[in-house]
Amino acid sequence: MQGQAQQQAYDRGITIFSPDGRLYQVEYAREAVKRGTASIGIRTSDGVVLAVDKRIPSPLLEDSSVEKIHKADDHIGIASAGHVADARQLIDFARRQAQVNQLRYGEPIGVEGLTKEITDHIQQYTQVGGARPFGVALIVGGIQNGEPRLFETDPSGTPYEWKALAVGADRAELQEYLEEHYDDDATLDDGITLALDALASVNDGSLLPSEVGLSTVDVETESFEIFDQDRIESALDDADLLGEDEPEDDDEE
Amino acid sequence: MQGQAQQQAYDRGITIFSPDGRLYQVEYAREAVKRGTASIGIRTSDGVVLAVDKRIPSPLLEDSSVEKIHKADDHIGIASAGHVADARQLIDFARRQAQVNQLRYGEPIGVEGLTKEITDHIQQYTQVGGARPFGVALIVGGIQNGEPRLFETDPSGTPYEWKALAVGADRAELQEYLEEHYDDDATLDDGITLALDALASVNDGSLLPSEVGLSTVDVETESFEIFDQDRIESALDDADLLGEDEPEDDDEE
Amino acid sequence: MQGQAQQQAYDRGITIFSPDGRLYQVEYAREAVKRGTASIGIRTSDGVVLAVDKRIPSPLLEDSSVEKIHKADDHIGIASAGHVADARQLIDFARRQAQVNQLRYGEPIGVEGLTKEITDHIQQYTQVGGARPFGVALIVGGIQNGEPRLFETDPSGTPYEWKALAVGADRAELQEYLEEHYDDDATLDDGITLALDALASVNDGSLLPSEVGLSTVDVETESFEIFDQDRIESALDDADLLGEDEPEDDDEE
Amino acid sequence: MQGQAQQQAYDRGITIFSPDGRLYQVEYAREAVKRGTASIGIRTSDGVVLAVDKRIPSPLLEDSSVEKIHKADDHIGIASAGHVADARQLIDFARRQAQVNQLRYGEPIGVEGLTKEITDHIQQYTQVGGARPFGVALIVGGIQNGEPRLFETDPSGTPYEWKALAVGADRAELQEYLEEHYDDDATLDDGITLALDALASVNDGSLLPSEVGLSTVDVETESFEIFDQDRIESALDDADLLGEDEPEDDDEE
Amino acid sequence: MQGQAQQQAYDRGITIFSPDGRLYQVEYAREAVKRGTASIGIRTSDGVVLAVDKRIPSPLLEDSSVEKIHKADDHIGIASAGHVADARQLIDFARRQAQVNQLRYGEPIGVEGLTKEITDHIQQYTQVGGARPFGVALIVGGIQNGEPRLFETDPSGTPYEWKALAVGADRAELQEYLEEHYDDDATLDDGITLALDALASVNDGSLLPSEVGLSTVDVETESFEIFDQDRIESALDDADLLGEDEPEDDDEE
Amino acid sequence: MQGQAQQQAYDRGITIFSPDGRLYQVEYAREAVKRGTASIGIRTSDGVVLAVDKRIPSPLLEDSSVEKIHKADDHIGIASAGHVADARQLIDFARRQAQVNQLRYGEPIGVEGLTKEITDHIQQYTQVGGARPFGVALIVGGIQNGEPRLFETDPSGTPYEWKALAVGADRAELQEYLEEHYDDDATLDDGITLALDALASVNDGSLLPSEVGLSTVDVETESFEIFDQDRIESALDDADLLGEDEPEDDDEE
Amino acid sequence: MQGQAQQQAYDRGITIFSPDGRLYQVEYAREAVKRGTASIGIRTSDGVVLAVDKRIPSPLLEDSSVEKIHKADDHIGIASAGHVADARQLIDFARRQAQVNQLRYGEPIGVEGLTKEITDHIQQYTQVGGARPFGVALIVGGIQNGEPRLFETDPSGTPYEWKALAVGADRAELQEYLEEHYDDDATLDDGITLALDALASVNDGSLLPSEVGLSTVDVETESFEIFDQDRIESALDDADLLGEDEPEDDDEE
Repeated sequence: MQGQAQQQAYDRGITIFSPDGRLYQVEYAREAVKRGTASIGIRTSDGVVLAVDKRIPSPLLEDSSVEKIHKADDHIGIASAGHVADARQLIDFARRQAQVNQLRYGEPIGVEGLTKEITDHIQQYTQVGGARPFGVALIVGGIQNGEPRLFETDPSGTPYEWKALAVGADRAELQEYLEEHYDDDATLDDGITLALDALASVNDGSLLPSEVGLSTVDVETESFEIFDQDRIESALDDADLLGEDEPEDDDEE
Repeated sequence: MQGQAQQQAYDRGITIFSPDGRLYQVEYAREAVKRGTASIGIRTSDGVVLAVDKRIPSPLLEDSSVEKIHKADDHIGIASAGHVADARQLIDFARRQAQVNQLRYGEPIGVEGLTKEITDHIQQYTQVGGARPFGVALIVGGIQNGEPRLFETDPSGTPYEWKALAVGADRAELQEYLEEHYDDDATLDDGITLALDALASVNDGSLLPSEVGLSTVDVETESFEIFDQDRIESALDDADLLGEDEPEDDDEE
Repeated sequence: MQGQAQQQAYDRGITIFSPDGRLYQVEYAREAVKRGTASIGIRTSDGVVLAVDKRIPSPLLEDSSVEKIHKADDHIGIASAGHVADARQLIDFARRQAQVNQLRYGEPIGVEGLTKEITDHIQQYTQVGGARPFGVALIVGGIQNGEPRLFETDPSGTPYEWKALAVGADRAELQEYLEEHYDDDATLDDGITLALDALASVNDGSLLPSEVGLSTVDVETESFEIFDQDRIESALDDADLLGEDEPEDDDEE
Repeated sequence: MQGQAQQQAYDRGITIFSPDGRLYQVEYAREAVKRGTASIGIRTSDGVVLAVDKRIPSPLLEDSSVEKIHKADDHIGIASAGHVADARQLIDFARRQAQVNQLRYGEPIGVEGLTKEITDHIQQYTQVGGARPFGVALIVGGIQNGEPRLFETDPSGTPYEWKALAVGADRAELQEYLEEHYDDDATLDDGITLALDALASVNDGSLLPSEVGLSTVDVETESFEIFDQDRIESALDDADLLGEDEPEDDDEE
Repeated sequence: MQGQAQQQAYDRGITIFSPDGRLYQVEYAREAVKRGTASIGIRTSDGVVLAVDKRIPSPLLEDSSVEKIHKADDHIGIASAGHVADARQLIDFARRQAQVNQLRYGEPIGVEGLTKEITDHIQQYTQVGGARPFGVALIVGGIQNGEPRLFETDPSGTPYEWKALAVGADRAELQEYLEEHYDDDATLDDGITLALDALASVNDGSLLPSEVGLSTVDVETESFEIFDQDRIESALDDADLLGEDEPEDDDEE
Repeated sequence: MQGQAQQQAYDRGITIFSPDGRLYQVEYAREAVKRGTASIGIRTSDGVVLAVDKRIPSPLLEDSSVEKIHKADDHIGIASAGHVADARQLIDFARRQAQVNQLRYGEPIGVEGLTKEITDHIQQYTQVGGARPFGVALIVGGIQNGEPRLFETDPSGTPYEWKALAVGADRAELQEYLEEHYDDDATLDDGITLALDALASVNDGSLLPSEVGLSTVDVETESFEIFDQDRIESALDDADLLGEDEPEDDDEE
Repeated sequence: MQGQAQQQAYDRGITIFSPDGRLYQVEYAREAVKRGTASIGIRTSDGVVLAVDKRIPSPLLEDSSVEKIHKADDHIGIASAGHVADARQLIDFARRQAQVNQLRYGEPIGVEGLTKEITDHIQQYTQVGGARPFGVALIVGGIQNGEPRLFETDPSGTPYEWKALAVGADRAELQEYLEEHYDDDATLDDGITLALDALASVNDGSLLPSEVGLSTVDVETESFEIFDQDRIESALDDADLLGEDEPEDDDEE
């Protein structure tokens, strides 16, 4: 109780440190990320993979309506986890930055540069008063100078570069799975399989095409591509993860 | 009590997360939506249906005065549930966006694009201080590229696309009813019947024409149409739901 | 006590929802309306009637000083109940809107349009911080396209259209009286009598000319007219409601 | 205690209603008015009278320094009661409004129009945050269209028109005195006598010239006139109210 | 205790009235004035006298450093008591007003006009939020239209005109002394003596030249003059008040 | 408890002193610095060394992603410890200042001048409301007028010049180590060895190349250089500190 | 406890007086000054001396890094005590004021004028909300019109002129020492000795050159001069205060 009362004394103001140097509102925003379904990013030798869990709470909700993978530029995709409306704000911000870069310098924005524009924007919401932090984490993947790059933005506004990562629900289990199975020499197809394997590992071992979102940016074309249901189904089939589609009354989000 | 005291510590500031990553003010705004009478949207093969419960608290109140269905553009209608004055603000915003789009690009705004303009506007009221969230949910329905589309905006600022949905009072029961009876191949007339059936299911099985609002946007004409009392009566008659109109002293809202 | 403490936790901030989705400050503003003397509006086949209770607290106070009926435009009148200074702000706003409309479009503003301009203005004070809601309700009556129209604005910013309504003190009793005696085919003179009957019903059955305000907008002339004491006296006489004028030391407001 | 604790919960924010629809800060500002010495206004057939109690706390304080009667325009005077510094702000505001009117329309401002400009200004300080209400009441008297007019502004921003009124200390007793002795056909001189009688009635029956301020605006000249000590003394003498001037150590304000 | 708890509920916000209509922050600012050493102003038939107690806490502090008498314009001097840094702000404000007046109207500012510019400035800090009141009182003395005038500004922003007054520490005793000994026909030299007598009366009957500040504006020259130590010494000598200068270790402020 | 309750009364507002003259929020920001891994700066006769502990929490996280050493200008490097997102803001600020200086004066910014621009920027966040202090300390090293210079910026906004210093975790132990082993005549290579020795002293005596960041600015070239893994490995080897790289499941940050 | 609770009720808001007219935040800022090491200023017949205690907490910290003596203009120096980062802000402000004066009037700023620009700036931070007071005291010394002048600025924004003063730690003892030993006819060299004697008196009777900062502005050259270590050593030697430099592990600040 003492500890809790202590914590409560410092966790309700955004622009304030606790006595041990923590920013509680940022930590709570991380909890908001965990409340969202998982998203995974994997960097392979010939491209990056973004895969998301997008199980929907009602059979009447359009699958496409659960937007967790977004195109930021021709060569960059972003997967999100957490507060959906917040994610949309950051995606809009990212797209504007990409356009501005193109306009100003006549060339596509780099994956790293874009990520840092986003995290610097996020940081402002953790230091300056009058607004709350963003309750969302993004995985930014794309090709820069012919190399696949994969970044994370977290609610504190810190950019991280990863070989492979998971954000959102079950992050700990998924990250552990990725660490165990990641192979530096994997191809894009291997990466797709690893991402789906990881998602299935926290979903009873199989997945329905409608429950998954999948996209890639390959080194060859430098083009962001979102997979349609058929390609997802065939990818699941290749990975031996295709679940049986029984019409459930699933009402969880 | 502990839990409640805990909750109270975090639910009175808009721009603040609770320790488990929730935004209480947004959740309370969702309660404001539930305090409004129900609204239903149904997407059919040849158009969308918007139907609303508009029982009025006094016989002297004009039926037309309970505005729950609004024209956003020639090809888009919006049904609302929740805080009426808030709904009017969002409808005004939507209309301005539609006009701006027409002016700027010389073409009608898309249903999806309009919905997302609205939800991005809503999100701002959940992150930046100095105002409360909107206590209203909207169902945005219309035709885009010849296809019927149906969206929801909720108080968090998240856009959802639906085949059929209910917002406001009795949402759970109504949504369950829609899930059970929705048919992907239904015609616009089937959709009207389903919407009225659903509303009647939570109203003792019958409805008065004055208690219902009804509108459609069909694929053919791409025109938003509000039904007058005669058409509503005939639709209720067709659906075998026409209640008997006895002058009650109903004083509930 | 628990309930009360609960309520107090949410009722002191304007821009905040309670856990059950209510806006307490708006509800308290409705109480401010009830603290004002009653105002009545009645729509008849050939015009609208606005009647107000304007008993004055001191014989030295000028009757005309209790302003509860206001001219908004040549064809629109407004009766108010509640916080007088707030009412004046909204009346000023309404007049400016009427003038702007005339200037911009070269035609008089509609009764409905004017009402909604007012309610949208009111709504802002319930959502954006830094000010309290308006503690006043208005009855807006006039002729639009040759038809009599009668609207209410409440402190939440919701517009309602009525056949007949009462706001302010004794609203419940007065509204019940109107519901029992309202006749869709009544003439303007019938409407005047009904309004006076209603006011008298909560005043021991009779009224003094100085205690009543009366005005009409008839379909023929489309002109807002305020009755002088003689016309009021004759109207009371016609309605058999003329009270005896004894100089009381009445000190209630 | 319960009641008090209740009240304290709502009386410390300006822009907030109490559960019963009251604005406590406005009511407390009315208490600030009562802390000031009394001011009286009387409308007669041929002009208005403004009379004020201006007893001074120290014999070294200049009588003229207690400013309670102010010239607003050639034809309008204002008497104040309550917080002196606040009164000065409103008087300045009134003078500027009078000048602006002259400049803009080439004619003197009306007494009623000026009063309402002032009350609308006052109202803003009761609704919009960041400032407290004005702790002062004004009596605005003058000639408009050849007619004497007499108005009051209170801290809520409500304008009242009176035949005769008192504000400040002893308001209840003074108002009762005025109600008993007011005569609609009184002349300006009668009005002066009535005002002095009233003030004397709460001052042991007599007054010193230095303790009273007196001014008139008569219908003939339409000119605001402040009485000097000689005229006040002669008026007191005429009214048989002239007290004996003994140098007291009066230290009340 | 109850009374105290009551008071504490209302005394920590600037822009807020207490239930009995008081502004506590203004009253506390008056306490800040009392914490400063005394200042005295005296109006005589041929000029005004400003005299101040300026005992210094350390022998190493320069006498001239305790600035309590200031030149506002050639013909106007100001003595202050209370928070020194606040006084400097108001003096700067007064000097700017004097210059602006000269520039705009080509003539020196009046003593009364200047005083009221200052008090109106002070009032703003008692009504509008975001700043505290000024913790200082000023005595403004000078010649206007050939007449000596003497004013006070207090923390509420009220202007007073005096024949003679004291502000700061021991105000009550000093004011009583002045009331007893003030003579309307006194000359400037008599005024100086009275001022020094008063100061000595609360200082064991004698004064050191270094502990006193003295200045005059006489009707003849209309020039503000500050006395140097020699003139002060001779004035003290004339008044038979010259104390013996023993080097004390006085460490009080 | 008393002491703690006391402290809590003053530590939650940024722009507020405690009774003993401390700024708690600044002190808590210093705790945020200690939560980051250590950074070390060493000034030698022929250049400065920046060395950082950059152990990463997951084998999938890119080493390069943990940015603790930054180039501010060609001749100035900055090492950081503490809140990463805050560090990025200050680095951006530093780079802009360097560019502005080059643009404005046509010459590179001095190390001292740049440091003070940064600390003055930091100070603003400790005095003006609406934002929290920066939770980061920087070590700014470079060549100015041919001399190596080494500075620290702390969360209070104070600049310090050092011969050698450590910030972040284990500051006390590291600083003590540096004080014991620092030699004024050391060469750049000696400095590198001392920095690595110090880091190893709190890391079981050995380091992995991937866990260390290293950079120098030497007097000769005046160029900031970041060491790649090979150079780091060889430096560790030279210092006899090369640890064995066993693939651990290290999950600490 | 009662007294403490009382005090706590008023000491956490900047722009607020306590019931006894005190500004607690300003008083706490004075405590921040006392937390800094001492600074001394002495005015002599032929110049001013500024001397500071600058013991450093670590042997690796550059002596020059502890900046307590600053050049404000060619003829004015400033010594500070208290919050270092705040001091830097005021020094910057002072330098800009000096430049502006030179630019605007073509002549160097006076010592008194500069001091008052600084104190007026400081005062703003004690009256207007949104920032805390400056936690620093300055000693401003220089030559004005051929005369040595010595001023102090304190956190309330009050300017004082001194013959000799100490600020910061041990102020009371140091000031007492100065009062006992100050000689109006002392030369600049005497002043240096007195300053060092005073500092030594609270430092076990001797000082190390590295622990002292020393500077002068003499009447002859009107130039601010900072002493280097050699001159300080020789001054200490002259004053017979030279301590023995043993390499301690002194870790206090």
